[in-house]
Amino acid sequence: MILPRDLYGVTGWPLGQTLSPLLHNTGFQSLSIPSVYMAWPIRPEALPDFTAAVRTLPIKGCSVTIPHKIAIMTLADEIGNSARMAGAANTLFWQEGQLCCENTDVTGFLAPLADINLEKMDALLLGAGGAAHAVAAGLIATKCGSVTVTSPHDQSQYSFCDRFGFLPIPWRERYDRAYDLVINSTPLGMKGKFAAANPYDFSRAPRGIAYDLVYNPLMTLFLESAAKNGCKCINGLEMFFYQGNAQFRIWTGRDLPAASRVALEQALGASE
Amino acid sequence: MILPRDLYGVTGWPLGQTLSPLLHNTGFQSLSIPSVYMAWPIRPEALPDFTAAVRTLPIKGCSVTIPHKIAIMTLADEIGNSARMAGAANTLFWQEGQLCCENTDVTGFLAPLADINLEKMDALLLGAGGAAHAVAAGLIATKCGSVTVTSPHDQSQYSFCDRFGFLPIPWRERYDRAYDLVINSTPLGMKGKFAAANPYDFSRAPRGIAYDLVYNPLMTLFLESAAKNGCKCINGLEMFFYQGNAQFRIWTGRDLPAASRVALEQALGASE
Repeated sequence: MILPRDLYGVTGWPLGQTLSPLLHNTGFQSLSIPSVYMAWPIRPEALPDFTAAVRTLPIKGCSVTIPHKIAIMTLADEIGNSARMAGAANTLFWQEGQLCCENTDVTGFLAPLADINLEKMDALLLGAGGAAHAVAAGLIATKCGSVTVTSPHDQSQYSFCDRFGFLPIPWRERYDRAYDLVINSTPLGMKGKFAAANPYDFSRAPRGIAYDLVYNPLMTLFLESAAKNGCKCINGLEMFFYQGNAQFRIWTGRDLPAASRVALEQALGASE
Repeated sequence: MILPRDLYGVTGWPLGQTLSPLLHNTGFQSLSIPSVYMAWPIRPEALPDFTAAVRTLPIKGCSVTIPHKIAIMTLADEIGNSARMAGAANTLFWQEGQLCCENTDVTGFLAPLADINLEKMDALLLGAGGAAHAVAAGLIATKCGSVTVTSPHDQSQYSFCDRFGFLPIPWRERYDRAYDLVINSTPLGMKGKFAAANPYDFSRAPRGIAYDLVYNPLMTLFLESAAKNGCKCINGLEMFFYQGNAQFRIWTGRDLPAASRVALEQALGASE
């Protein structure tokens, strides 16, 4: 029997449906790495206590998700470049005795776009919340031609664009011109109360690449609409897998095995 | 794949050779309980931080070993009867939202003596340190006829006997009369710097039962001497297994499976 030696996990609140334990534990087991990955739902007010626990045990690495991605940066010793750029972190790890935070959502977002030259492309980003920050950092890092941002209901695109130097537009103007890349970072389409919502109807602007950050379900109304109108589709599993892979690389120096991806696809019902 | 849901472990300082992770992880895996058991070496000054971590994550249960067995009682919410009696605790667990500590070394010590009526027996206890406290609580609980205590080098038997109402004698007087049960709770005979030491030569008082708390090695000079002189022998594996079994029962409501005992015996080279 392999006895677990190192402890990893994910913290957020709540943490009901996280697939990170499946992803990383499959990785550890397939590669015979004596580590284990837990789920720790932690209320926002307990995050300083949680970080203290990370230091005490110690916990070797931790995924950090909503609503802790910004607060965790004030509790770590060092902030990595991508986290600094995005203004949010999703990963804790140790380096030379320092507790460091980094943002692998940026790497994860860019991974499925690796073969595409974004420098001459016009991007439309739907949503300006937590997930959009990693997208912004990624689009800046790859010198995306132009980035337009809009958000439903609230006016969050204005302060967001101030920060990143993008162009904000009102939600109702999102079809006024066509884009090469349309990214959904809103929760619209996500399993649950937003499942029946679609943030963008591609029949009104049938062109470019549709990139949905939502991964549950894999086929959202957003992507259905894109596919029907001949657009290339990227679903949220890509970004989720690659942000996890970047964490796993930071922690272990290795890539996640194929088994982790298969487990993820099976869990999301995409094994066909 | 079974994803680990609950976290357990052992804390002490240092924790080099602990067999508790093998015992409990084998138990969890054999019984398909989705839990995992880690080893957390924690310096004495960090024990309050460690207890805070137990509360924060939370850790569902924890074995507590040297040098934390006394200090842990001041950090728990509730103290169980055996821990109170022994003045030391080796187990943390949760009950109705309270962090409780208990001492399963008492149960573990008594388990191999279950078929013996101690009420008419005279016991000699060698050593008056941490391990002796659980022995004392066990001997009192079973109304042992008389308990004499001696200790090498230091004079710890005097305050120890004050506390428990036993009879202290100087180390050199341990052969002056014969006993029905001789218990070694000193580290003499333990693998390492004390391996070549024997706290009691049974050729000088060849009678009774020899009970060694040392479990590594399983066959100590103490037990060799007892066996050679026709005494019944109980090795330290018994107490170690049964204190662990009592912890496992508190945490899971079940006994450790046979596989845990086999794993322990194999690790100690006693599989013949």
